[in-house]
Amino acid sequence: MEQPSEQHGSIIRYRSGRLTREEDTIVTEHPVTVKINGEEFVTLVCTPEYIEDMVVGYLASEGMIRGIQDIQQLWTQEEEGYVHVTTDRWNPLHRQLFAKRYVTSCCGSSRHGFVYVNDARTAKSKPGVHITLTFRDCFRLMDEVLTSADLFHRTGGVHCAALCDAEGILLARSDIGRHNALDKIYGHCLKTGIDPGNKIIVFSGRISSEILLKAAKIGCEIILSKSAPTGLAVELAEQLGITAVGFIRQNSCNVYTHPERISDLSKLEMNL
Amino acid sequence: MEQPSEQHGSIIRYRSGRLTREEDTIVTEHPVTVKINGEEFVTLVCTPEYIEDMVVGYLASEGMIRGIQDIQQLWTQEEEGYVHVTTDRWNPLHRQLFAKRYVTSCCGSSRHGFVYVNDARTAKSKPGVHITLTFRDCFRLMDEVLTSADLFHRTGGVHCAALCDAEGILLARSDIGRHNALDKIYGHCLKTGIDPGNKIIVFSGRISSEILLKAAKIGCEIILSKSAPTGLAVELAEQLGITAVGFIRQNSCNVYTHPERISDLSKLEMNL
Repeated sequence: MEQPSEQHGSIIRYRSGRLTREEDTIVTEHPVTVKINGEEFVTLVCTPEYIEDMVVGYLASEGMIRGIQDIQQLWTQEEEGYVHVTTDRWNPLHRQLFAKRYVTSCCGSSRHGFVYVNDARTAKSKPGVHITLTFRDCFRLMDEVLTSADLFHRTGGVHCAALCDAEGILLARSDIGRHNALDKIYGHCLKTGIDPGNKIIVFSGRISSEILLKAAKIGCEIILSKSAPTGLAVELAEQLGITAVGFIRQNSCNVYTHPERISDLSKLEMNL
Repeated sequence: MEQPSEQHGSIIRYRSGRLTREEDTIVTEHPVTVKINGEEFVTLVCTPEYIEDMVVGYLASEGMIRGIQDIQQLWTQEEEGYVHVTTDRWNPLHRQLFAKRYVTSCCGSSRHGFVYVNDARTAKSKPGVHITLTFRDCFRLMDEVLTSADLFHRTGGVHCAALCDAEGILLARSDIGRHNALDKIYGHCLKTGIDPGNKIIVFSGRISSEILLKAAKIGCEIILSKSAPTGLAVELAEQLGITAVGFIRQNSCNVYTHPERISDLSKLEMNL
């Protein structure tokens, strides 16, 4: 029995001089502790949906596993808030490395991003141009993702991420933790064998270096955001060959990197 | 020489069918590694302003130091991105405990919040009612904080936090990391001897459990947010005796907990 991803509580609402007591919908903040081979590894605070996908995506994204084949067993103790993973790939050194790499800060920043930078630069080959979008596509995709995100609208308290192709949404997830939403997508792809490569990530929040690196790890070519990127994220997108488009609002947006995937730009033959 | 907190980059801007190439302002994401007694402890990714305040506030907020008196020396190696702290209070057990407590997730969620819950409940006495606000005060304070946050407006990429009393802003800080903004405020108070108790925290972002706990640690009685709280944050605010007001927009807001600090409510003699 999963915990509900939203709760209800009585609040006092003030609207232009009028006071009412109302039932309000509030997003749940749910801690999940991951145990690897019986040992506590990390606690993720999340929206309690698709928890196992999140754990798989998280471990893959952190380089703890290479893919679903590295997991022997995965089971959940709901009440206790544990997800158990057994894997052959684990050795005690992982924990030490993980602790060493511990980089913190939340929201628009990176826990491990900084350390990944060099890895990412060397390990990843640029994805090439397999997909292009028009500006109209960018607006439509952002609109579809935000409109479809139910929890986002009811609580105002979550981030939404979606894996898309030019036609529309393939997979969408919401979470109070910006990174969790991407981990849930990555984990689902790994479990079901969907190839997330050469696709688009549409994200409601800011593009921090960590979000950019997660998108790169997933293999996407384009990241669309309603919000701003950070300087480090722009630098990484440039180097990793990813098209970053931010501040997508109604009928306007900013292209930060690799405009070759925005087909209007060549058509309009702008001398930019 | 501190790194600038914003960078400039060339972007392609699309506005209702018109394309331009412009110089844009992008927020800097700056990693700072804290070394305690020569040993690497944590890396914080932040906006490069008030870095030493942030480190002091972070260590105090994490319980690593009790106050500024526990720090013997604190100096910065700008180029290398290190802040060095020497303290007598440190012992190797701290690192282990810290690693154990490692709870991750970003944005609207808590790294350590979960573990703090019990501490907070037992260690903190409720602050009492030393300060009250009208709804008009809430709107005015939120407006002042958002209007004064320069970087917030130029880059769209940071969170702002301010320590206020009913009259207005005492101290305001912006950061890409939501928690960093609060740590910068806390660190400044510890360094200068300002008593942050019985005051108001005004915050641009969501009230997660970690934000709520940091505000409680600082000693504030009221937290005002432009955005939503999480369920766990509401629960903690209730138990810790803190007034949480969210979704402050123009002329409306929601009071989640401890309405006794909103003076209009008693005046209006509402039967809520």
